[in-house]
Amino acid sequence: MKVLLVFAHPEPRSLNGRLRDVAVAELEAQGHEVRVSDLYADNWKSAVDLADFPVLPPGERLIPVQASKKAFQTGTLTDDVEAEIEKLLWADALILQFPLWWFAMPAILKGWVDRVFAYGFAYGVGEHSEQRWGDRYGEGTLSGKRAMLIVTAGGWEEHYTPRGINGPIEDLLFPIQHGILYYPGYDVLPPFVAYRADGLKETGFEPLAERLRERMRDFPFTTPIPFRRQNAGDYLIPSMQLKTGLELAGETGFALHRRASAA
Amino acid sequence: MKVLLVFAHPEPRSLNGRLRDVAVAELEAQGHEVRVSDLYADNWKSAVDLADFPVLPPGERLIPVQASKKAFQTGTLTDDVEAEIEKLLWADALILQFPLWWFAMPAILKGWVDRVFAYGFAYGVGEHSEQRWGDRYGEGTLSGKRAMLIVTAGGWEEHYTPRGINGPIEDLLFPIQHGILYYPGYDVLPPFVAYRADGLKETGFEPLAERLRERMRDFPFTTPIPFRRQNAGDYLIPSMQLKTGLELAGETGFALHRRASAA
Repeated sequence: MKVLLVFAHPEPRSLNGRLRDVAVAELEAQGHEVRVSDLYADNWKSAVDLADFPVLPPGERLIPVQASKKAFQTGTLTDDVEAEIEKLLWADALILQFPLWWFAMPAILKGWVDRVFAYGFAYGVGEHSEQRWGDRYGEGTLSGKRAMLIVTAGGWEEHYTPRGINGPIEDLLFPIQHGILYYPGYDVLPPFVAYRADGLKETGFEPLAERLRERMRDFPFTTPIPFRRQNAGDYLIPSMQLKTGLELAGETGFALHRRASAA
Repeated sequence: MKVLLVFAHPEPRSLNGRLRDVAVAELEAQGHEVRVSDLYADNWKSAVDLADFPVLPPGERLIPVQASKKAFQTGTLTDDVEAEIEKLLWADALILQFPLWWFAMPAILKGWVDRVFAYGFAYGVGEHSEQRWGDRYGEGTLSGKRAMLIVTAGGWEEHYTPRGINGPIEDLLFPIQHGILYYPGYDVLPPFVAYRADGLKETGFEPLAERLRERMRDFPFTTPIPFRRQNAGDYLIPSMQLKTGLELAGETGFALHRRASAA
C-alpha cells in the first residue's frame, strides 16, 4: 500500500517523533511505500484567509466555502494545498499522528484539515438534493482508502474510559474519525492511543513501540470502525435522522452512528 | 460585567462578523464592558513551537508541557500570550465565537487555546496527588467566571439533533465546553448556535440577531450547563471514574458528566 503519514509535533525527539519513526520503519519493512507530511518542519500555514484565494478580486468579501469551491474548480488552490491533495490521492491510506492537546488536534493539524479538505474535494461532492445529500459519510473522493489516528495523551487510560471524567476516547475522537475522516469516504480503523505520554519512562517505550508495530503490520487487514453509511438506507433524507429501531436498546449519542451488530 | 469576546473569522463582513457586532452592542447597552480579541485582525500565531519559549537553551529538546510550566512560572511567556492571559484575568466572562469548521474550532482559535492556556494557568493548577487530581473541572484559575460559545454551522439543525447524522451538537461541543472551558474553572452557559449559516437569507438575519440579543441580555443570569465537579464527590480519585448509580438509567457517553437532575 501507499501510505501518507501527516505528523504534527514540534519536536522530532519527542515520544511522537520516536513513534513516527517506528511506524514508518515497520510499514516500510512490510513493503509499503510511505510519505510523510511533517507540518512543523514544513512550516505549515494554519489559518484559512485571503492569501489562500489569490484570485479573489480585491475588496471582495471572503466567503470561505464559496472561495474554496471556486479555487478547487478552477485549479487555483495554493501550491502547498495542491501538494497535499496530490498526496492524498496518491495514498491508499492516511495516518494522522498528533498529541491530544485540549482533547483535540494541535492547531497546525487542524489548519491542515481546514485548508486541504477543499469544497469539491472533501465536501460538497456528489448530488445534493432532497433525495441525496451528497457523497459523504462513507462515500466521496477518498472512499476505498483507509485512515487511522496515532495519538498520544497526557492522562491515564482510565480517565478516558466510558465512565472516566474526560469522556470516552472514542467519543472524544468522533468529531475527527467520523466528522473529518469518514465524511470524505475513508474507512477508519480503531485509533492507536498512547496514554500517560508525559510520564512515560524509557522502559515503557519498547512495549509501546511493539504495540504500534503490530498495528502497522495489521494495517491492511484491520476491521474498520463500523460507522453507518449515509446513503445505504439507515438515515432519512433530507432530515438525516437515524431511522428508529436500528440501535441497541437505550443506545444514545455518537454510538448510534456505529452499526450495533459490531459494537 | 467585564466580557472578553475572542473572535475567529477571517471576514468582518461575514455572518460571524455581523453577529459579533450585535453581541458587543447588546452587551454594552446592558452596561457591560467588552473587549474583543480579533484573532485574524491580530494575525494570531497558531502553532506551539520553539519561538514560544525563547529562554529554552539552544538545542534543548522541546517538551511543550514542561516548557509551558517553566515559562509561566518565570514570567517568560511571549507578549501576545501574556496579553491574552491578562484579558482572561480581567474578564468576568469569556465568549468564544467561531464558525464550526469540520465539527471543531478553526485552527487559529485552537492555536489561541494551545498557546494561551498555559501550564500553571489553565492546567497543572492545585495539588496533584492520589487524593486530589488538581483544581480542574469546575475549579481552577478561572472559576467563578462564565463562558459561552457563539457558533455558526453550515448544516441543518436537524442534522445535529440526538439522532442526526452529524451527532448531537452538545456532544460535538463537549470537548470544547467541558474539556477547554469547564476544565480551568468556567461555568459554561448553553451555546448560541446559528444553523444553515451558508444559506441564510437577509430576511433571516434579524430574527437570528434578536435571538442573540436575548442571550446577551440574559447572560449574567443564564443557568450554566450542570457539568459535574471533579472534587465534589461524584468521582473516584485517582481513577476519575464516575461513581455508580449517579446517572439516569441507561445514560452513557458525555451525558454522564452532566448532573442528571438538571438534564
